Amino acid sequence: MATTSKLDKVIALCKERGFVFPCGEIYGGTRSAWDYGPFGAELKDNIKRQWWRTMVQRRDDVVGLDSSVILPTAVWEASGHVQAFTDPLVESLHTHKRYRADHLIEEYEAEHGHAPENGLADIPDPETGKPGKWTEPRAFSGLLKTYLGVIDNEEGLHYLRPETAQGIFINFANVMQTARKKPPFGIGQIGKSFRNEITPGNFIFRTREFEQMELEFFVKPGEDEEWHEYWLEQRTNWYVELGVDRDNLRHYEHPQEKLSHYSKRTVDIEYRFGFTGSEWGELEGVANRTDYDLSTHGKASGKEKQLQYYDQQANERWTPYVIEPSAGLTRSLMAFMVDAYAEEEAPNAKGGTDTRTVLKLDRRLAPVKAAVLPLSRNADLSPKARDLAATLREHWNVDFDDAQAIGRRYRRQDEIGTPFCITVDFDTLEDDAVTIRDRDTMEQERVALDQVPGYLGQRLLGC
Amino acid sequence: MATTSKLDKVIALCKERGFVFPCGEIYGGTRSAWDYGPFGAELKDNIKRQWWRTMVQRRDDVVGLDSSVILPTAVWEASGHVQAFTDPLVESLHTHKRYRADHLIEEYEAEHGHAPENGLADIPDPETGKPGKWTEPRAFSGLLKTYLGVIDNEEGLHYLRPETAQGIFINFANVMQTARKKPPFGIGQIGKSFRNEITPGNFIFRTREFEQMELEFFVKPGEDEEWHEYWLEQRTNWYVELGVDRDNLRHYEHPQEKLSHYSKRTVDIEYRFGFTGSEWGELEGVANRTDYDLSTHGKASGKEKQLQYYDQQANERWTPYVIEPSAGLTRSLMAFMVDAYAEEEAPNAKGGTDTRTVLKLDRRLAPVKAAVLPLSRNADLSPKARDLAATLREHWNVDFDDAQAIGRRYRRQDEIGTPFCITVDFDTLEDDAVTIRDRDTMEQERVALDQVPGYLGQRLLGC
Repeated sequence: MATTSKLDKVIALCKERGFVFPCGEIYGGTRSAWDYGPFGAELKDNIKRQWWRTMVQRRDDVVGLDSSVILPTAVWEASGHVQAFTDPLVESLHTHKRYRADHLIEEYEAEHGHAPENGLADIPDPETGKPGKWTEPRAFSGLLKTYLGVIDNEEGLHYLRPETAQGIFINFANVMQTARKKPPFGIGQIGKSFRNEITPGNFIFRTREFEQMELEFFVKPGEDEEWHEYWLEQRTNWYVELGVDRDNLRHYEHPQEKLSHYSKRTVDIEYRFGFTGSEWGELEGVANRTDYDLSTHGKASGKEKQLQYYDQQANERWTPYVIEPSAGLTRSLMAFMVDAYAEEEAPNAKGGTDTRTVLKLDRRLAPVKAAVLPLSRNADLSPKARDLAATLREHWNVDFDDAQAIGRRYRRQDEIGTPFCITVDFDTLEDDAVTIRDRDTMEQERVALDQVPGYLGQRLLGC
Repeated sequence: MATTSKLDKVIALCKERGFVFPCGEIYGGTRSAWDYGPFGAELKDNIKRQWWRTMVQRRDDVVGLDSSVILPTAVWEASGHVQAFTDPLVESLHTHKRYRADHLIEEYEAEHGHAPENGLADIPDPETGKPGKWTEPRAFSGLLKTYLGVIDNEEGLHYLRPETAQGIFINFANVMQTARKKPPFGIGQIGKSFRNEITPGNFIFRTREFEQMELEFFVKPGEDEEWHEYWLEQRTNWYVELGVDRDNLRHYEHPQEKLSHYSKRTVDIEYRFGFTGSEWGELEGVANRTDYDLSTHGKASGKEKQLQYYDQQANERWTPYVIEPSAGLTRSLMAFMVDAYAEEEAPNAKGGTDTRTVLKLDRRLAPVKAAVLPLSRNADLSPKARDLAATLREHWNVDFDDAQAIGRRYRRQDEIGTPFCITVDFDTLEDDAVTIRDRDTMEQERVALDQVPGYLGQRLLGC
């Protein structure tokens, strides 16, 4: 199975099984964003919860925050985003369409193995193929604007956050004081961010509206490099521990000359998505942001002291360095799905084999934990099965399905990654027991009805 | 204790204890939104989870969705929002400040007991007190705009959603098909919405950026009124079941002439917040949106059939009616806090009594489930206490605190609503047991160390 076609199969499954829908499909859709259907919404929520548990709740040295999408404009002026969060755009004089100059050059290099000798002049118009005629590159802001208040003017101009991080920095003093923490400690946040991407694409990988899971971890200057290594390892392990094959992850070290304006060092954790062109894509960036953000906000707001840490014992005052593991929530959803996707030969009812598609998601991530399936739609079986489903729903997200042949129902549950299928059959009416089928091994076990919650509880710990 | 001052006390506690911070405070703040600190973020998440469990996961007839903030512009044109989601604004010729005409008139009526005879002309300028001179009312859109793509023009114009509901309607066909549901069934969603409120205020009650928990429940026409009653009761019970005093809730029936353009009937669930002026505020609106939304989207998109339901048995095709319980997440957070806030006389160490402040939040909502407190900062006690905290953190959000006197630490935990305080004292080194104090009764129980997870597990079921 070629890796590229696996990606396409996952994308098809997402639509067909209700994980991800094109946003606004009935109106012709939009490339800016995607909508998450019933199973996608559950999967996304489970990923968030695992991140929050691992990164915030289980740690003594991290607390959570939930700051706003629209912050005062002064925040983005101080952070450097208004000035520096731009891409160089050129316009083709043939079609008057705009392109990112750096992307055109990168594509040329990938194709020819060397840079264009005469710069953009060597690059033909992508649509017509005519010899390139380009305007000078112009800086184009990646910030999405909006206007608050009664008049659409500069006074009302605000930006939608392009990262959740700044909301953490400007709340640093309030959080440190009320949570009574001192460095090394971190503040974690999950939330939506918005960027005016010129070319959204690769399914849910690059969208204008997306979700981030960010930790800003504040440390003493001088201890930053060690903590950077620590978090790079922790974050890589997080994906592996939740089921991603380590061979499909790699680290990409940003070259010094391409670092963001705030960064001393950035390492990306990449996943082998299998995109056409470049196989790998960024899941998460782990950056050493130094004291850039706290310093600039301190200066701009005149609240320098609040954004520093005073070490009473050493009688020292310093601005913490920040290590930032910044993960893309929807990118990780895509990685978890691609990595879990498998096609296998499985025995069928006729004594032969069929190919079954199965999402081998970690149980903690699986959108549905168990499905209760009466063998057939029957006046005795269905109520018993419904009762069982209702009992289990007190604890977990549980599906009930009595439509179609049992084989098709198993197939559907395999495709959405349900770890356990519980069949209520005619024997159940005699022995008060059910058959529980394991998604991965397809082994079946007979379990007494009143033991089912305990059976699942043991196997769904941490869900 | 006067109700108004209780509200003020809760607002002060929110800031002091790290529930809610003014957004962008170091830059002078903004009235548009608020940021949620460590305990506020946990509380908010717990409310979301309870809503999701009750409204989506525990029900066989509801599934979830997570759609985008920025939908195609056509959605808002069809829904009527571009046309009708407006407020009448007037400008005072004295100050050139703008006001909502309907609010000015309502305030006049509240003060004088009757409508102004000559309309706005009778209403003085609110800032200067001079006899009113007003412009004619002009429609002002409550939609926040943004621009996608490379040029800020009409082509790139998009809106931030003012309600999550439309994302549900436009995904109706995709969800019904993949989740294999048929009416009566519902689609639930939690997410941010944005409205260009003229006068944000009353703390987190009215903000430009806010979160909603919305259910759109699709029923057969003719069964809509019955389902409306059902959901009004269910939703009211939800607040009561999570600890809100029923006497602090009431239903407000919207008069026919003031109904939204889509509504056949709307009843608000209001909470007695104790605002200055009007005591009550809307927590949630329960509306009968009829077939307005599915019909208009069907017509506008040319996908009428997809947005209808075909009943095979009856060989009938119809457009479902929609019952919508639409709750404000942050408003409910405020109501849960106000209702849980209490000041009580409690015995102090000196044999007298002190006033203690306690948030009697339902255990499922409490941001911290238990706090582990070593009696004093000590080389033997602290490690034992830290181990216990680490064990409990595998399951719940647990605080560890060894700073300050034990009395002050109890006080802090009471104020953030922690149901259980676990003290590790010098006897613990002998008997391997700890003292667990109940937040509400303040009774203390001695529990063996290895029994603590079970003790809490029993009392934190459903958390």
